[in-house]
Amino acid sequence: MSTAFKTPADVEDSYYDAIDECDLEKMMSVWDHSPQAACLLPMQPMHHGTEAIRAMWKPMLDPELQVDITVNHLEWIEQGDMAIHLLEERVTLKGTGERQPPIYATNVYRRDQEGWHLLLHVNSPAPPPPGLAPGGPGVS
Amino acid sequence: MSTAFKTPADVEDSYYDAIDECDLEKMMSVWDHSPQAACLLPMQPMHHGTEAIRAMWKPMLDPELQVDITVNHLEWIEQGDMAIHLLEERVTLKGTGERQPPIYATNVYRRDQEGWHLLLHVNSPAPPPPGLAPGGPGVS
Repeated sequence: MSTAFKTPADVEDSYYDAIDECDLEKMMSVWDHSPQAACLLPMQPMHHGTEAIRAMWKPMLDPELQVDITVNHLEWIEQGDMAIHLLEERVTLKGTGERQPPIYATNVYRRDQEGWHLLLHVNSPAPPPPGLAPGGPGVS
Repeated sequence: MSTAFKTPADVEDSYYDAIDECDLEKMMSVWDHSPQAACLLPMQPMHHGTEAIRAMWKPMLDPELQVDITVNHLEWIEQGDMAIHLLEERVTLKGTGERQPPIYATNVYRRDQEGWHLLLHVNSPAPPPPGLAPGGPGVS
């Protein structure tokens, strides 16, 4: 199923709604259909293309594993047919109430003839709490 | 110092050269000058804007902490005045020869009137080796 989203914010709302509702078809409706689409979740390899992205999400949208995600908006960049949203996600496992450490997300949206879709979703860990951060080069 | 880069690949080359050469001015020449510029290195908070990015890189480009980075190209997306490069970085600490686990990088470039600059650099850990990956929801 493909959905014509009018704005990148509409795509993003549907992405997080799909997780909240454990709805695989809604999840897949948000993705750009090119092989360039890529999704990187914590502790996972990067998955490229909608087939691989669907195969990765399918077991994770099991209602028994349901999670609650709240997001904190950091930055919104829009230029031509691309939009990038940097945000912080706070994930709680609904079954146990366990809160996971916050993580960053980089969401990249692209507009094609149909409308806007999600091209990249990339998670990164947020740093450890103050006092635990290393002073070393941790560089890249 | 600002440099007019003709292609996003030129920006990327200078970014990794700056790390290799421990050259803070070269590092700063690659960045987009808007407050939207953001850099996320492992174990660090996200830094926004060139002043914060300079303050973060300054101690890390100390020649005593010199690192060697080799990159593996995963995906290149270009659309209008934006370009995105997904890659894998392998970092070795030159002093000790210690190899750190590979990490992903998402590099976003933007073209303005001067030329191309680096708008976002976001690192994410690569997954643990097969067999250590969790089967759980690790979701976002």
